[in-house]
Amino acid sequence: MSTSTPDPADPVFRLHAGGKMAVASTVPLTSRDDLSLAYTPGVARVCEAIAADPDLADDYTWVSHTVAVVTDGSAVLGLGNIGPRAALPVMEGKAVLFKQFAGVDAVPICLDTQDVDEIVAAVRALAPSFGGINLEDISAPRCFEVERRLDEALPIPVFHDDQHGTAIVVLAALRNAATLLNRKLGDLRVAVSGAGAAGVAVTKMLIAGGVNPDQVVVCDSKGIIGRHRELTGTKAELAEITNAAGRQGDVSEALRGADVLIGVSGGQIPEAAVAGMAPGGIVFALANPTPEVHPEVARRHVAVVATGRSDYPNQINNVLAFPGVFRGALDARATRITDGMKVAAADAIANVVAESLTPEAIVPSPLDPRVAPAVAEAVAEAARRDGVARR
Amino acid sequence: MSTSTPDPADPVFRLHAGGKMAVASTVPLTSRDDLSLAYTPGVARVCEAIAADPDLADDYTWVSHTVAVVTDGSAVLGLGNIGPRAALPVMEGKAVLFKQFAGVDAVPICLDTQDVDEIVAAVRALAPSFGGINLEDISAPRCFEVERRLDEALPIPVFHDDQHGTAIVVLAALRNAATLLNRKLGDLRVAVSGAGAAGVAVTKMLIAGGVNPDQVVVCDSKGIIGRHRELTGTKAELAEITNAAGRQGDVSEALRGADVLIGVSGGQIPEAAVAGMAPGGIVFALANPTPEVHPEVARRHVAVVATGRSDYPNQINNVLAFPGVFRGALDARATRITDGMKVAAADAIANVVAESLTPEAIVPSPLDPRVAPAVAEAVAEAARRDGVARR
Repeated sequence: MSTSTPDPADPVFRLHAGGKMAVASTVPLTSRDDLSLAYTPGVARVCEAIAADPDLADDYTWVSHTVAVVTDGSAVLGLGNIGPRAALPVMEGKAVLFKQFAGVDAVPICLDTQDVDEIVAAVRALAPSFGGINLEDISAPRCFEVERRLDEALPIPVFHDDQHGTAIVVLAALRNAATLLNRKLGDLRVAVSGAGAAGVAVTKMLIAGGVNPDQVVVCDSKGIIGRHRELTGTKAELAEITNAAGRQGDVSEALRGADVLIGVSGGQIPEAAVAGMAPGGIVFALANPTPEVHPEVARRHVAVVATGRSDYPNQINNVLAFPGVFRGALDARATRITDGMKVAAADAIANVVAESLTPEAIVPSPLDPRVAPAVAEAVAEAARRDGVARR
Repeated sequence: MSTSTPDPADPVFRLHAGGKMAVASTVPLTSRDDLSLAYTPGVARVCEAIAADPDLADDYTWVSHTVAVVTDGSAVLGLGNIGPRAALPVMEGKAVLFKQFAGVDAVPICLDTQDVDEIVAAVRALAPSFGGINLEDISAPRCFEVERRLDEALPIPVFHDDQHGTAIVVLAALRNAATLLNRKLGDLRVAVSGAGAAGVAVTKMLIAGGVNPDQVVVCDSKGIIGRHRELTGTKAELAEITNAAGRQGDVSEALRGADVLIGVSGGQIPEAAVAGMAPGGIVFALANPTPEVHPEVARRHVAVVATGRSDYPNQINNVLAFPGVFRGALDARATRITDGMKVAAADAIANVVAESLTPEAIVPSPLDPRVAPAVAEAVAEAARRDGVARR
């Protein structure tokens, strides 16, 4: 689409010159007394206090408001495996969005390894420096194991945004779409196209949020996932919990009579398949920059359409979720992020626009300043309810 | 000396509440267009450019002005092995000093391991995120191997500040003290008390800066280091290059007739030993908070005294070195930090006060704003001279 040589006149390159972020001191450092308090000899008293009671690090260091944005550069945006250095501009962007929307101080950590054991070891090693770990753009299926192992090993929240950020916003949008159409989540027949990081997480999140797993079918590039196929790992798990009717075939078959299509595949879905959905349907075509089905095409056949793009209505954008999710988890000093906290985040996002629903406004704008505080509060409450909060 | 329970009225704890640093965006993020430039879809063009030419990360990310301050918490200040969480206040302090004095954006990385292989693996893994690695408060002898292996493995500067920061400032101070006393560095008999991280680096730096290795003796807790002792590793190396006369005995013997004492041990040195030095001597007693010999006691017997303390004249403070050293290395895009760059840093520090030397002012104040820019310029020039600069 574009050349890879920087054009100095391109506003994107102009904006990115020198990167997008900086560190700032929050204490004065201009006098000898300032140095004696912030550094030696004063700082030694703080160190001794934390050595005696490690929880005091939450009070007297920046960990209580700090997240590492960790990637191995293996699945960056739609660009694929471009490696850690080329991934850094995305991680910086993510970091500054954390700050802008939720006051979370995030640091990009781009890892020079794509080996699961090495990723886990590196993140475990650096974890004491941060209050949470946001995993980003790590390819499936490695991302599932990396997240599971870190979640088990670390006493702080670990959250793979490509999975759960997307899933939270999809659940929020589907809640509002169902409300708008006077449907119940538990009655909807849902087809998910794509069984990568986002597809798996969306499927689990929708089920956690009230969709009936028997009514869900998931497709990968080979077609509908079910017990008729020989599968391992996460896909075998999906085959167990979804597709109760044992349907087989391609995405057109999955869509026949379905109420909802969630596209998280990047593949294209023919108009005829969408035409086969039940009347009054819902299409979320989230591939970026090219949705699985063009929103204007989808709109001919269904009642509500959402995409991942900013130039069409109903943008499903992770920025609605991740800043508030971590803000809430950090505020509650949560030890992990539970399904309950994710569902609470989705409800909070949905509620922001619940009073003004239209087919073109089932989710808030990514810039809506009400979202992150509402999500943070709901997530912190859910953390306390789920028993993972430390305050 | 003080209780380890935080006293809310203690100004140190008040200052440290919430930590001492934050992240800031350097780009606007308030409109949809802002997001399209700083994040998707615009950022993808920058990622593609860096994927095609990794050196562009220096131009379009924050690595060109960013350093990781890495510790394992094994030798923090005089507190010893207090672990990574309790070390974080020191690393935050270091990070904000980097910013304050040299505009370097530094991030504290406190590692949850004290295994050399694991430290090396973790830092190698996270290195693409940073323009340099400042190692901090890692105990000897592990610090030597960690630094050597990272320096060999990484294409960016690696610098263990406890070694080289101290050594640079000691060399600067000794240059000016010698000038003040009309002595030549190469003629001075030097006794170094302490063979840990700082002692080893100070010894090597002084030799690189012009001190005659034959005239140097180094003592550890067992006495003078020399070929008469069975030694391994760094101490065996010191035995090879110093103590040409084959002297044996304790620190009193090392000081008999010496012109210079550099104390970097933390142990106490009796006044009688200092009294045995040659007339017109120089004592740097750098242990903190309790110098090896009290500066007022030392002053009875020698001409120039320096300590590590802010409440006596001539504070040997690493902050005179590390901000400018990294600023210069980053400005030159140096691939490593050579001895020539360290000697250049020492010269630059010394030169700042060269025109106004007195026995109470052989080094600049740690707050002197002229120091870091002078050091940075000298270090960048030396990097180009030594062939390690990439611009």
